[in-house]
Amino acid sequence: MKVKHELLRAFCVDAMVKFDMDKSDAETTADVMVTTDLMGINTHGSKQLYLLLKNMKEGGLSVKTKPEVVDEGPGFAVIDGNFAMPMVTATKAMNLAIKKAKETGIAYVGVKGSSHFGAAGFYANMAAKEGLIGLSMSNVDPCMAVPGGKTPHFGTNPIAYAIPTSNGKSVFLDIATSVSAVSKIFAAKILGKSIPDGWLIDSDGKPTNDPMKYPQDACILPMAGHKGYGIAVLIEVLSAIVTGASFTLDVPCWVRDFSKPANQGHAFIAIDIKKIIPIADFESRMNKMINQIHDAPKVDGIEKIYLPGEMEWEKYDRQLKEGIELPEDVVINLKKLAEELDMNMDEYLK
Amino acid sequence: MKVKHELLRAFCVDAMVKFDMDKSDAETTADVMVTTDLMGINTHGSKQLYLLLKNMKEGGLSVKTKPEVVDEGPGFAVIDGNFAMPMVTATKAMNLAIKKAKETGIAYVGVKGSSHFGAAGFYANMAAKEGLIGLSMSNVDPCMAVPGGKTPHFGTNPIAYAIPTSNGKSVFLDIATSVSAVSKIFAAKILGKSIPDGWLIDSDGKPTNDPMKYPQDACILPMAGHKGYGIAVLIEVLSAIVTGASFTLDVPCWVRDFSKPANQGHAFIAIDIKKIIPIADFESRMNKMINQIHDAPKVDGIEKIYLPGEMEWEKYDRQLKEGIELPEDVVINLKKLAEELDMNMDEYLK
Repeated sequence: MKVKHELLRAFCVDAMVKFDMDKSDAETTADVMVTTDLMGINTHGSKQLYLLLKNMKEGGLSVKTKPEVVDEGPGFAVIDGNFAMPMVTATKAMNLAIKKAKETGIAYVGVKGSSHFGAAGFYANMAAKEGLIGLSMSNVDPCMAVPGGKTPHFGTNPIAYAIPTSNGKSVFLDIATSVSAVSKIFAAKILGKSIPDGWLIDSDGKPTNDPMKYPQDACILPMAGHKGYGIAVLIEVLSAIVTGASFTLDVPCWVRDFSKPANQGHAFIAIDIKKIIPIADFESRMNKMINQIHDAPKVDGIEKIYLPGEMEWEKYDRQLKEGIELPEDVVINLKKLAEELDMNMDEYLK
Repeated sequence: MKVKHELLRAFCVDAMVKFDMDKSDAETTADVMVTTDLMGINTHGSKQLYLLLKNMKEGGLSVKTKPEVVDEGPGFAVIDGNFAMPMVTATKAMNLAIKKAKETGIAYVGVKGSSHFGAAGFYANMAAKEGLIGLSMSNVDPCMAVPGGKTPHFGTNPIAYAIPTSNGKSVFLDIATSVSAVSKIFAAKILGKSIPDGWLIDSDGKPTNDPMKYPQDACILPMAGHKGYGIAVLIEVLSAIVTGASFTLDVPCWVRDFSKPANQGHAFIAIDIKKIIPIADFESRMNKMINQIHDAPKVDGIEKIYLPGEMEWEKYDRQLKEGIELPEDVVINLKKLAEELDMNMDEYLK
C-alpha cells in the first residue's frame, strides 16, 4: 500500500488523540514514526503504534503521564519517562542534550522509565538538523547471548549517530549491536526461509539456521563476536545502569508482556561542532571526505559507494514525493488500530 | 624473554632521556607502554618505542615540542600535539577531559598534530581509575576498504572505553573497527599462514586468504560490514575532521614514512558518573550486571564467561607479580633501540 506521508501522519495523530493522548504528544510521536517510514525503516515506524497503544491500554505505558527532568547539571541530565509514550520522552531528552551542548560543547541526557523508542537514528538526526553531532542508544529486553553463553542476556542494544553536512542530509548510522536485527529473523520465520550462518544459537549453544526456534529456543549472537558484545555492554551502562532503568535480565519484553512497564533506558549525546571548529571549515572537510568516498575505486559490479545513511536519505526524498510504500505487516497493524478505535482508515490511507 | 615491569619501564625511560626527551615526558610515555605490555597487548606496548624514536630522529615527530591547548570551553577542548610524543599528548588530553567532566558531567577533548598513540584502552582506563567512564579513539593511516570499494580508505580506527567498578578493575574494551587488527595479518605473514575468510580483499576487490599481499596489494575489511564502516566514519570525524588533523587518504603511515608528520587525530570523552548517580548505587548495579554475566549458562566446553577487559586484567595481575613475557618481535625492537643508543640492555632486562 502506498500512502502520502501527510495522511499517514494525520491518521497516527488522530488515533492517538482518540486514545486520549495530548495532541502535541501525538504529533511528536507521529513525526518520529512517519519520518522513520519515509526512510524505509518500516520495522520501526508507524507499525509500532498499535503495539505501543496496546501497552498504554494494558498498563505497560501510561496515556496521561509526562516525562520529567529528575536531575541535571551543566552538561548532563536524567529524565524519568514516567512510562509516557517513549517517542515523547526521547524527543524531550535529545532536545535537552542539544540545548545543553550549545552551552558546554557536549552534553549527555540519560532516560529511565521508558520503553521501545522506535528508530534510534531519528533522535541522532534531531541533533544533526541543528548542526550538532548526535548519538542515541537504548537498552532492550534480552535476546542476545554473551560470547560463551547460550541464553538471552543483552538486548540488540541499538546505537545511532548523525553528523550534519552542508546539503542538509546527515551522514548517519543506526545499527543493532547484534549480528542481525530481530525483525529479519521474524521475516525469515514468516517466509519459511532459513537464516545465514552465525546469526543464531539454539538452547544448547549450537549454531542453528532455523528461525522457527527464535525466540523460545534460540538467541541472537552479537555482531563481530566480542566486539559487538563489548559495545552492547557500554550501551547498557550509559542507557540503563547510570540512569536507574531496568537492565539486562530484568527488562520485560514490551511486545510480550503488555501490562508490565518495560522501564527501558536510553542515552543521548550531542556535540556542538561550531564551538570546536568554524562551521565552514567543518563543512569543507566533510565534503572532501564525502567526495573521496564516492570517488573510491569500486569492486566490479558496484555502481555506487554509499555513505552511512545515504540509502535512507534517497528513499526519504523519493517517498516524500511519491508516497510511502507500506509493507503488508505495517498495514495489518494500522488496520487493527483503526478497528479498535473505530476509525475509517480509508479516509486517510487512500 | 621475561622481564620485571619496573626494569622495562626504567629501560624505556632511560632510552628516551638519552634521546633528549624530558624525563617527565619519558615517564609518561613509559607508563603507557609498560601498562599495555602488562596487559599482554604487546603489539601496542614498548615494541613501538623504537619506531616512535625513529620518527623523532627523521622528522615525523619532534623531541622538544610540547602539546598545547589551542581552544577550549566548559565541556570541550582541542589540543595541538605539535608532533610531540603522542603518548604525552594523549595523556594530557584525557587528563583535561577528566578535569572538565568533573565540572560539567561530560567532556570532549580532540587532538591534532599527533601520531600513533599506542593502545586506545590505556587512556580510557585513565578515566575509569578516577571513577569516570572514559572513551578514547583515533584515526589511522588508510588500510581498510569501504563497502563496495577495493582500495585502502580508512584506517583500522580503534575505539576503546572503560567503566569503573568497585574492585578497581574496569570493564573495558579496546578494538579496531576493522575485522582484524593489522598486527594479526603481519603475524600470519611471518608464520607463513593463510588468514581466515572475510579479512582481506586484493586489489581487484576479490577475497583473499594470502597475507603476503598485504599491504601493497590488499586491504582489510571493516568489522561487521557496513556497521564497522559506519563506526570508522564517526571515529574519523570526532578524531580528525573536527580537530584539524589529517584525515582518510591524507594520513601518512608513521611506520613507512618516518620523516613525514602523520598528523593523526584522537578524541577523548569522559563522563563523571557520580554526578549522574550516587556511586554506591552505580557500583551495586554494575556488580549485579557483572555477576549475571559470570553466572550465565555456558556453552559446552566453556569454563568462564569473561567481561570485556577481564582477560587483560588477569594477565596484568599475573605479569605484575611474575614479570612480563615479551614476544620475540618486541625484544628485537628493544635490542635495536639499545644498540642505536649505545645502552646495555642486559643491565635492565635480566
